[in-house]
Amino acid sequence: MILVTAGESHGKALVGVIEGLPSGITLDEEKINAELSLRQQGYGRGGRMKIETDRIEILSGVIGGRTIASPLSFEIKNKDYENWTEYMDPFHGDVGKKALTAVRPGHADLSGIIKYGFGANARPVLERASARETATRVAAGAICKQALEALGITVNGKVLLIGGKDDEASMHEAIRAARLDGDTLGGRCEVRVKGMPIGVGSYVRYDRKLDAVLAMHLMSIQSVKAVEVGLGRDFAYLKGSESHDEIFKDGRKTNRAGGIEGGMSNGEDIVLGVTFKPIPTLMKGLRTVDVKTGEPATAASERSDCCAVEAATVVAENVTAYAVLDELLKTFGGDTMKELKSRIDERRAYDRG
Amino acid sequence: MILVTAGESHGKALVGVIEGLPSGITLDEEKINAELSLRQQGYGRGGRMKIETDRIEILSGVIGGRTIASPLSFEIKNKDYENWTEYMDPFHGDVGKKALTAVRPGHADLSGIIKYGFGANARPVLERASARETATRVAAGAICKQALEALGITVNGKVLLIGGKDDEASMHEAIRAARLDGDTLGGRCEVRVKGMPIGVGSYVRYDRKLDAVLAMHLMSIQSVKAVEVGLGRDFAYLKGSESHDEIFKDGRKTNRAGGIEGGMSNGEDIVLGVTFKPIPTLMKGLRTVDVKTGEPATAASERSDCCAVEAATVVAENVTAYAVLDELLKTFGGDTMKELKSRIDERRAYDRG
Amino acid sequence: MILVTAGESHGKALVGVIEGLPSGITLDEEKINAELSLRQQGYGRGGRMKIETDRIEILSGVIGGRTIASPLSFEIKNKDYENWTEYMDPFHGDVGKKALTAVRPGHADLSGIIKYGFGANARPVLERASARETATRVAAGAICKQALEALGITVNGKVLLIGGKDDEASMHEAIRAARLDGDTLGGRCEVRVKGMPIGVGSYVRYDRKLDAVLAMHLMSIQSVKAVEVGLGRDFAYLKGSESHDEIFKDGRKTNRAGGIEGGMSNGEDIVLGVTFKPIPTLMKGLRTVDVKTGEPATAASERSDCCAVEAATVVAENVTAYAVLDELLKTFGGDTMKELKSRIDERRAYDRG
Amino acid sequence: MILVTAGESHGKALVGVIEGLPSGITLDEEKINAELSLRQQGYGRGGRMKIETDRIEILSGVIGGRTIASPLSFEIKNKDYENWTEYMDPFHGDVGKKALTAVRPGHADLSGIIKYGFGANARPVLERASARETATRVAAGAICKQALEALGITVNGKVLLIGGKDDEASMHEAIRAARLDGDTLGGRCEVRVKGMPIGVGSYVRYDRKLDAVLAMHLMSIQSVKAVEVGLGRDFAYLKGSESHDEIFKDGRKTNRAGGIEGGMSNGEDIVLGVTFKPIPTLMKGLRTVDVKTGEPATAASERSDCCAVEAATVVAENVTAYAVLDELLKTFGGDTMKELKSRIDERRAYDRG
Repeated sequence: MILVTAGESHGKALVGVIEGLPSGITLDEEKINAELSLRQQGYGRGGRMKIETDRIEILSGVIGGRTIASPLSFEIKNKDYENWTEYMDPFHGDVGKKALTAVRPGHADLSGIIKYGFGANARPVLERASARETATRVAAGAICKQALEALGITVNGKVLLIGGKDDEASMHEAIRAARLDGDTLGGRCEVRVKGMPIGVGSYVRYDRKLDAVLAMHLMSIQSVKAVEVGLGRDFAYLKGSESHDEIFKDGRKTNRAGGIEGGMSNGEDIVLGVTFKPIPTLMKGLRTVDVKTGEPATAASERSDCCAVEAATVVAENVTAYAVLDELLKTFGGDTMKELKSRIDERRAYDRG
Repeated sequence: MILVTAGESHGKALVGVIEGLPSGITLDEEKINAELSLRQQGYGRGGRMKIETDRIEILSGVIGGRTIASPLSFEIKNKDYENWTEYMDPFHGDVGKKALTAVRPGHADLSGIIKYGFGANARPVLERASARETATRVAAGAICKQALEALGITVNGKVLLIGGKDDEASMHEAIRAARLDGDTLGGRCEVRVKGMPIGVGSYVRYDRKLDAVLAMHLMSIQSVKAVEVGLGRDFAYLKGSESHDEIFKDGRKTNRAGGIEGGMSNGEDIVLGVTFKPIPTLMKGLRTVDVKTGEPATAASERSDCCAVEAATVVAENVTAYAVLDELLKTFGGDTMKELKSRIDERRAYDRG
Repeated sequence: MILVTAGESHGKALVGVIEGLPSGITLDEEKINAELSLRQQGYGRGGRMKIETDRIEILSGVIGGRTIASPLSFEIKNKDYENWTEYMDPFHGDVGKKALTAVRPGHADLSGIIKYGFGANARPVLERASARETATRVAAGAICKQALEALGITVNGKVLLIGGKDDEASMHEAIRAARLDGDTLGGRCEVRVKGMPIGVGSYVRYDRKLDAVLAMHLMSIQSVKAVEVGLGRDFAYLKGSESHDEIFKDGRKTNRAGGIEGGMSNGEDIVLGVTFKPIPTLMKGLRTVDVKTGEPATAASERSDCCAVEAATVVAENVTAYAVLDELLKTFGGDTMKELKSRIDERRAYDRG
Repeated sequence: MILVTAGESHGKALVGVIEGLPSGITLDEEKINAELSLRQQGYGRGGRMKIETDRIEILSGVIGGRTIASPLSFEIKNKDYENWTEYMDPFHGDVGKKALTAVRPGHADLSGIIKYGFGANARPVLERASARETATRVAAGAICKQALEALGITVNGKVLLIGGKDDEASMHEAIRAARLDGDTLGGRCEVRVKGMPIGVGSYVRYDRKLDAVLAMHLMSIQSVKAVEVGLGRDFAYLKGSESHDEIFKDGRKTNRAGGIEGGMSNGEDIVLGVTFKPIPTLMKGLRTVDVKTGEPATAASERSDCCAVEAATVVAENVTAYAVLDELLKTFGGDTMKELKSRIDERRAYDRG
């Protein structure tokens, strides 16, 4: 498949196109909107999230609730755009009137203006680099999830850590404290894929390895700084005898590998660990330089979120769903869901046979 | 660029082709062989490494020590092949005579035979899934390193942890103990890229993000289970005020981000953390099932390495070198080294300007 | 670049996304609309063209008339959609109510229903396979043309033949006669690129050859059945002494090669010949089989065009513009138009130097 | 699949790697050598062809005559290399001693030295741009043909025209005459694919159209200047009623479309027309400029072939075989030949059902 996302944070709309879906996926629009809504929630989010109640509008590729194998395109309107026309209109906007010159540490701002020659205004950078883009990836994932469900595969994310805390009460407490402090928090989540057939991905070439592909997808999410499979970084502390999943006549009893050996799914749950850095826009402001004046400045905070780990977990889950469906199609082909399902079922039968 | 690697562990030769190198890279053959040699060393390696003293033979793409922009192909002979002809010869070999049926936990064996229909013999799987393949990736990286050097960019790997120990004496002690035990150890390394121009990679699309691309490359290395950028997984424990790199008139004073913000190089060192699981082939043997008989079995140990973290660090370093040159070419184009260098220098001048 | 097009012929909208454009392309919306309008005109077109006066709506990637390097997405509304909601709505449409069962020879209908499992209804096939899709490719090309213009490169299409006639009066006469007959006509056009720098494309790998890439793009246009470069098929009749372009101190005096030698631009005009088959939907109807009943039937004619060669020439021209800009970016890189322009100018200076 | 070819005309060896072949293709080495031999023959070839009797040496990916799904790498030694070591050795050669400065019209020479900065020596260009590279593509195609055969698909090339003559006696006479004249001849061939299942390729996206993909592959062959499908350029002279293939209860009675409608195979033979320009290296020499002296010169003739259309037809046939297998794998997936075959058979049954 090809997934293209487009759209600025305060532009007219976010746009997504998924090319290569099989025909015959049954889609429920509200399931997609439900994921979009989950992305906007979570303890620790600030004001803007309430403005947007994102809803998908499918423009092509689906008729009567079923995919037709043609490119599935969709848009998610930016409700705030009407207040931003003066700055963002494709032909009449003046982005200079909303210039951001105190480039924000932890963001694309400074490198972006140098790369793309935007002079002393990081506005065009942040409009695209913003995590708002993840709404399109969640929508795409929510579509793929419905295909996966029909194939007997589920993908679920779960917050593991926020600010180093691993139970919900402590997490909330940490968020409250950070907010009072004008500070922010990062965290870590697990994404788990259940029901994968054996042999998705391949050991024969590096960019066909399932773990490599998943790492690319997950690391590309805004604010992700670590991707782990199974026990991940903890393997650096373990012995071989503590690290592998012995095979018995009735299957395996451990899953330290996280469901991937030799770059392929091995039939166990795929277990991924994803770490998010704290939001770099702090209410208390980080020190920076104003690229227009060359003088020291305080980085502005465009939004008041203190912790986005819950939302980011929704993103990681949906991004994984897209990647998993894509990998299934690479391994099994399939112009139609019927073909794809029968080929996966055949593999499953063979596994057991 | 396109990098293709080929070759089985006990086949005639490993083969690599790099397509898309600019013309005019000056190459020193012995620098490539030196990296190949480093890959074969390291405390904790066993017997086979001594058989092979890998040497590259370049077959095309280089004349008189300079690249000519044509595909650079090379081979690394498998010295052991003469003893394996009976089993591995492309037309006359009988791989059934070297059948591996007690599929090894932690390896591609079991999933591989199911995927590719090899029945009860994992030999064809392990011949390709073996970490022997990394010799071609090291050779490719060693070539790219010489181009990077001419561009003022260095890539260096350093072992950080072995079996949880972070100083050399303790690491060696841990390896000795593990070997006595018939056990193995994993570890963690850092790969550091110095001299990157700003703005390599891009925030505009997920698969153009520099961290995403690097994560794919590193996670694809045999036995890698975690990839981190900058503080990586530790961000899950930190506050925003402890996590970002403030910007001052004379530059930054920290590099927690590991040199990548918004999917782009930001001019600081790129710092990557890579974790390797312990070698899954233990002298003491893991429990498994013989897929031919269906009975419980002990996984054979094809080689006697106890810890390959030093070698794996050489691999990670060279794999990074390839990925970095590839990313530079995506950003700057360049049919010739001269063009590439002048464009990078121009970017650097602009950064400072 | 990546170009994705989406949209059904009677769906809500056609959608396009161009990823990888440099920043700083100055865009005039009306120039895009002018190309869209040209695509809808031409002697020999029937009724539907009048319903649609296609206009682009840019959704992202452009602010204040300049590209910002982010994905440029756009839509072109299908004005007819309101009459088709009942059949085509993504969630509530019933495509069975507009079933097409008498599969049309010369179209994707029959193969499409078999491939995608649409049973006896080719409606979902023709909605996407329709040449209506070319509106998005024209819009994309019209955007690229404005970048090319700033780089000193023009792309122009010209009808050469319609129904075997090569002057305008005879072409019109042939079209009139064919229409009276309920028949249709094909033809042939030339696309000419002026101002290309030397060395775009490459001889080093088959899929980097400029002629190969252009052939892919042009052959992918609905109804194209032949692509030629320079003298094209006529080379089969010529001697070497009549076929090549000798080189003199003051340049070449012929351009039989069509500006491409060894898979690269050689500085002469690039000259491409493109042949279109006659429209397969004839008023007088072709014989076919109704896939629902299995009985003989006459293929319905959804539209009354008799000859679309003029429109198709506009498509070929714009498709070429996209491909040419893409190839320039592959050769020269360029995050910004300024960089791209200066690198091309440098190559041109070198050529002359 | 990925196909990479490498190697210079007078370098050590030509190298090829095919990645993505399914496991279980039964290969006969001599069938590959037979195609390599055919490529070297044909009326009108000169001296060098006799030096080389190309033979493939498979280095990986095949054991005991069956593919194992790992990258299949091979080399074809350049027997002449021993006489060229002084100039071409990767580290010790001095390519300046075999400088070509009178750049040859019709070749990559002039554009190549400008692109890659080779100064006044086109030797590095011609070593790679040479049609010698097609030996690797023939070998790759010959491998794919054996897979296709097992799938019930054949690919055959046939010379249609040489120097405008369409029967063998006249072709030979034309070649004799051209040779006496120190001239060369071009021609045209047909490549025909029999046994394709319906629905390979797709109408949903431009670069998935089967005709577009085939056009890319064929146009990339050295000296090809036109690619046609079915009646090809002749469609420009025809009416719709003469152009399409009506559908009857017992199938079609014509195949003007050449087996592809809507970018997909339609079950009829795929029929491709490929035109080759005359060899640009004439014994009588074309006028050019010596790029070292800047003075007029006569282009040297490195080889004495007068007509290579027969050989080029072998190349076109084998290049098509590679492309066809690749397209089948895109549509049907398939880790093993068994899977691929059963999916294709299922499609065929459905077609008839």
